[in-house]
Amino acid sequence: MQHIHAEIITIGDEILYGQITDTNSQMIATELDKIGIRVVRRTAVGDTQNAITNALKVALQIADIVIFTGGLGPTKDDITKTTLCKFFEAKLIQQPEILAHIENLFVQKGRTLNNLNRQQARFPDKAEIIWNPIGTAPGMWFTQKDKVIISMPGVPREMQCMMTETIAPKLQETFHTPFIYHKIIRTINLPESILAEKIATWEDSLPSHIKLAYLPRMGQVRMRLTATGENMTQIQAETHAEIDKVLPLIKPHVFGFDNEEIEEVTGRELAERGLTIAAAESCTGGLVAHHLTKIAGASRYFVGGIVAYDNRIKIRKLDIPEKLIRKHGAVSQEIVSLMAENIRKKYGTYLGIATSGIAGPDGGTPDKPVGTIWIAVSCESKIFTQKLQLTTDRTLNMQLTVNYLLNKVRQMAIEMEF
Amino acid sequence: MQHIHAEIITIGDEILYGQITDTNSQMIATELDKIGIRVVRRTAVGDTQNAITNALKVALQIADIVIFTGGLGPTKDDITKTTLCKFFEAKLIQQPEILAHIENLFVQKGRTLNNLNRQQARFPDKAEIIWNPIGTAPGMWFTQKDKVIISMPGVPREMQCMMTETIAPKLQETFHTPFIYHKIIRTINLPESILAEKIATWEDSLPSHIKLAYLPRMGQVRMRLTATGENMTQIQAETHAEIDKVLPLIKPHVFGFDNEEIEEVTGRELAERGLTIAAAESCTGGLVAHHLTKIAGASRYFVGGIVAYDNRIKIRKLDIPEKLIRKHGAVSQEIVSLMAENIRKKYGTYLGIATSGIAGPDGGTPDKPVGTIWIAVSCESKIFTQKLQLTTDRTLNMQLTVNYLLNKVRQMAIEMEF
Repeated sequence: MQHIHAEIITIGDEILYGQITDTNSQMIATELDKIGIRVVRRTAVGDTQNAITNALKVALQIADIVIFTGGLGPTKDDITKTTLCKFFEAKLIQQPEILAHIENLFVQKGRTLNNLNRQQARFPDKAEIIWNPIGTAPGMWFTQKDKVIISMPGVPREMQCMMTETIAPKLQETFHTPFIYHKIIRTINLPESILAEKIATWEDSLPSHIKLAYLPRMGQVRMRLTATGENMTQIQAETHAEIDKVLPLIKPHVFGFDNEEIEEVTGRELAERGLTIAAAESCTGGLVAHHLTKIAGASRYFVGGIVAYDNRIKIRKLDIPEKLIRKHGAVSQEIVSLMAENIRKKYGTYLGIATSGIAGPDGGTPDKPVGTIWIAVSCESKIFTQKLQLTTDRTLNMQLTVNYLLNKVRQMAIEMEF
Repeated sequence: MQHIHAEIITIGDEILYGQITDTNSQMIATELDKIGIRVVRRTAVGDTQNAITNALKVALQIADIVIFTGGLGPTKDDITKTTLCKFFEAKLIQQPEILAHIENLFVQKGRTLNNLNRQQARFPDKAEIIWNPIGTAPGMWFTQKDKVIISMPGVPREMQCMMTETIAPKLQETFHTPFIYHKIIRTINLPESILAEKIATWEDSLPSHIKLAYLPRMGQVRMRLTATGENMTQIQAETHAEIDKVLPLIKPHVFGFDNEEIEEVTGRELAERGLTIAAAESCTGGLVAHHLTKIAGASRYFVGGIVAYDNRIKIRKLDIPEKLIRKHGAVSQEIVSLMAENIRKKYGTYLGIATSGIAGPDGGTPDKPVGTIWIAVSCESKIFTQKLQLTTDRTLNMQLTVNYLLNKVRQMAIEMEF
């Protein structure tokens, strides 16, 4: 199958110098992906004629579609329009409809036009107008042989609006693009290399029109399947059939799909069963509670918790006997079990969860090195505990502990019978 | 002054397809900017030999330095190493030191190597090793005539570490870049436009070799001063003289410099005075405690806290009279004051802090719309409370609340006399 290829070119010094994050080209890429157009390169260049012209020449060598964003504002450093005019040997002509649109926007805001604004109504005679309902700079659509060159402003909400309302449908019509289907499997607590090993045979047997990519981050790996074909229903069915084959191999580590987050899935499993939860945190210092409460509607299952950072708080507020701490140390199965049980009882919840460990970077002993962390999940009939041996990085250790704990809660919630 | 030019090339289909935001190239651009190297282009290409090789060829036409990120993992879609080997006609040779480093990382985690991991120790004979202290994939540094080509893994924290610890200093040494001195003033709870207005006269009077950039994020604005010159001592002195002039204009909002975070500065002010603190959180759901405990050594001042998400926890565990909640609502000056006072008394600390509000996106009333949040700081002799009227964004509201609260604690700690 023939793919239609696109390049996205972002214009602006502020991107090059790292002063702002380029979210525009991600947004454009997502929209193109949805209509089966393959982005083959993304480029960011500065505000100079030379840089823009060179980028365009290079892009036309590999892409059927070149999309520019940025450099269409009214000020001196906005030179995209004049540069493209020169490239296409086009003339700028005052367009009464564009001027009327700009005047209308100004009237709405109670402002009056200056000369710079009026110049935004001058438009290349060789381009089609892409209307910008919410901003003053229209987009430009040039056609050269069988290629299309598009220029949009850099203001994200203006661009998003032009992209979804006009450009994407017009591209789909122009290029008769194939269908692309993406599905992401979200896995947790399984390193990329072990995951790859577990599913190697399955991966090798994937048909050539379904591709797999591993996207690891902070103890999670997203497995992205991308299928291409002429029939959307068929490639969706084929992708789901492949997913059905791979899931049993990695079951306990799969918590969700696409953009679902672990705290969201775990929260949903709790809410659906009417289960409530409370947290007693030592080494995670509030991060477990934060993850549970960052989801809107968390009050349906999360009632609260204690951050028992100091051992005296464990003793006085979680009723952990001092001599038990002296005997086993706060970082132990005995203590973390009691913490989970006691928070459950004290806060009157169905589940109690707890963490106790050495997050680092200091505080390790030969016996319990940095990264030794105990987690526990308690309910009336049973208790689960696990010792984790993590890294020397404090931030990562806290995050990984949250991953393990929330995934365990998710699993236990699913297993509960009513 | 002659500029050294760099191009950044990000490798990975996930960037092209818009599935993840490319924060890596922004980070690299920022680091290069700090040492006076000018990024002239940023490119993102897919996981194919052709795309990578072409991007490199094109980059070498305009750049003295080409920096790759991504595609160094252990799985099949990671092809940067073999592609660069081919380009430079280098051979992959097993490096015992790299293998030892990888084994060591695995031992720490209690895991065993598989074949994919072992292959990461194969390294091109024509490259220098850039050590990756926290990950398995080392970076590569190739030299071709007077140009440098660098390849780093795509895992953000590994790359950040390699970039600041090894690559930036090595580039500075290799290219004898002019002296650049950066100083960042960290401000909080002051919107960019108001900040700019307050310091407009000072900003206009800055000498031309000292530039100011505003970098706003989540309720904080970093003011980055960049001085360029031939004499480091002189440009440092000039920069500090400018800072001495501007600080009085924005004093209560300046919490630190450079990479200091508010939780770090606040923690230090507490620790230096031997002050202890406990938190009672409702709408922030653990985020305040998390910020305090993400700093190593937090146990010197933070003893713990209660996440009183459900009102029953406020009543039963923080002794807030139920009828007071019925009278004023949980989101009120009366309740947040009591929460701060009671956590201080119950946990036996010098300071007690509390939050109660409507984080959103739902739960607002005409009287108390989403974003209405009360904060309180209590000590034995006084109590401070403040009503915040924030946004409709849950995540942002939680973070902004933490900003306000920690900055207030910082100010109160400084004002304490002993």
